Amino acid sequence: MTAPGRTAADLAERLLAGDKRALARAISLVEDDDPEGWALVQEVYPRTGRAKVIGFTGPPGVGKSTLLAELVRHARERERQVAVLSIDPSSPFTQGALLGDRIRLAEHFLDAGVFIRSMASRGSLGGLSEATLQAALLMDASGKDEVLLETVGVGQAEVNIIDHADTVVLVLQPGSGDSIQALKAGVMEIPDVIAVNKSDHPLTDTMIREIRGVLSLGDQKGWRVPIVKTEASRSEGIEELTDKIAEHREFIEKEGTLAERRRRNLMNEVLALATARLRRKLEASVRKDESVQELLDEVVARRLDPASAAAKLLEREL
Amino acid sequence: MTAPGRTAADLAERLLAGDKRALARAISLVEDDDPEGWALVQEVYPRTGRAKVIGFTGPPGVGKSTLLAELVRHARERERQVAVLSIDPSSPFTQGALLGDRIRLAEHFLDAGVFIRSMASRGSLGGLSEATLQAALLMDASGKDEVLLETVGVGQAEVNIIDHADTVVLVLQPGSGDSIQALKAGVMEIPDVIAVNKSDHPLTDTMIREIRGVLSLGDQKGWRVPIVKTEASRSEGIEELTDKIAEHREFIEKEGTLAERRRRNLMNEVLALATARLRRKLEASVRKDESVQELLDEVVARRLDPASAAAKLLEREL
Repeated sequence: MTAPGRTAADLAERLLAGDKRALARAISLVEDDDPEGWALVQEVYPRTGRAKVIGFTGPPGVGKSTLLAELVRHARERERQVAVLSIDPSSPFTQGALLGDRIRLAEHFLDAGVFIRSMASRGSLGGLSEATLQAALLMDASGKDEVLLETVGVGQAEVNIIDHADTVVLVLQPGSGDSIQALKAGVMEIPDVIAVNKSDHPLTDTMIREIRGVLSLGDQKGWRVPIVKTEASRSEGIEELTDKIAEHREFIEKEGTLAERRRRNLMNEVLALATARLRRKLEASVRKDESVQELLDEVVARRLDPASAAAKLLEREL
Repeated sequence: MTAPGRTAADLAERLLAGDKRALARAISLVEDDDPEGWALVQEVYPRTGRAKVIGFTGPPGVGKSTLLAELVRHARERERQVAVLSIDPSSPFTQGALLGDRIRLAEHFLDAGVFIRSMASRGSLGGLSEATLQAALLMDASGKDEVLLETVGVGQAEVNIIDHADTVVLVLQPGSGDSIQALKAGVMEIPDVIAVNKSDHPLTDTMIREIRGVLSLGDQKGWRVPIVKTEASRSEGIEELTDKIAEHREFIEKEGTLAERRRRNLMNEVLALATARLRRKLEASVRKDESVQELLDEVVARRLDPASAAAKLLEREL
């Protein structure tokens, strides 16, 4: 019984020393919801909090992966250690497209100072945000200067995933009308920085005016969201985007909101982890317990209402 | 102590008789998380399951409210009783826009056979999907033939809200590129029917080809998702959209998937209700309990990792 503990200590030591394979192994453990993975995060947690965590979101197809590849290149030229964690929707019919996205990052695969990992956003055993947070913490502990989180989507759920980032970047392209409407309607929260990629498109300036219009409706105090034109496939605008991300970080550090943000995010994470555990426990009981199935049959037969069934389920399980 | 019971019984009786004010009052009770509201749903639940529940989703600005107003008019011409439940994102800066949306439905406000209600998607005491489901059940019990649920957004969270619909309609407009990409990437599940509104736009046919392209990549067995052109502001395409929704319903009834779908949805609802209750309980303890705040301080100070904090929180609270 001491062997697994020794292995975990070994793994932790190698991880903290920046060993890429140890980091990969550690992330697999948390992704598989292996207790050893949780023990590992527990052990290295005191060594986290140093990395700058930057989240990227936006609709599919706007060129986020190309942009990330450029940001990684830029960081590497400045000898910064970078980790990228991409959350892929596990679509039945876009395997090819996402593989293509990863290929854009491929030039960095052999660089010891870069760590790249994808996670599927569905079917994750431990719940997505749980595994994401744990993986980000492991990346942070392994000595990365920057941890870049990437999600695909324009809804609140996608934004929540990267909510433990210090800075959130929304990536759009000319024609991203749905996303602008989502911002305007409050379906999506206002990000910290907006990048308009593929900016050689003739409608870029119209798009930027629309974004400014939406932003002007909001709260004008404090940080003013910068809009940066990028053309990642030609390495344009990368320097400016990096600067704006750095400025945002300086701003929140100076204003003291970085500490506030991290406290709020950590509280949300603790609650999300606790809730996800309970939900898993309930789901397991629904699958395995025949009496729970009978409870459900009563609901389907309209004899027992869903809320009463939920109350009975809780009485029974907890 | 018998008076509230009698009031509840009165309210239930009036609700089941189709009284509009009783329905409005009942929904306010569940929205406020009042125990009387839950008791009411419990009482009328055996009288639910008869209404056709149709969910509408899509990015903001595509004209969903105008389309819903037309569908209501069409249903009323056939003397069907209709309820509409709109879930509004509670944006700080779109009060006006959403008020405008509701105005499109205003011609129906005085019709005794139509019931229209909005709910804010944030800050809802009992959790959004809980309150939504309860409200939909109350509408069903009050004798509506059709319950139309409307959400704004293009992410999975928005689709989940209307997941207890028998038929899900995605409403797009020419230029909804982000939404098509979201479908393609699997960020959003394939709906049952797609309406392309504002179809007098020159790019409508291009848009429809794009949608067909995405759909052709998916599973071709079973129901083939129809794409209907509508121009709601001129009452065009409403008949065809109604027909396609009816065809989908016939299809799932015939195939037996309606029963399956409802069972799955009810199971998910029971789990969501149970999880939301637990989450609320945990949140209350985080707010009120000083020792939980101390636990959080430990996490912020990087002395205790989030997962261990979650485990401690669960030990303590349950």
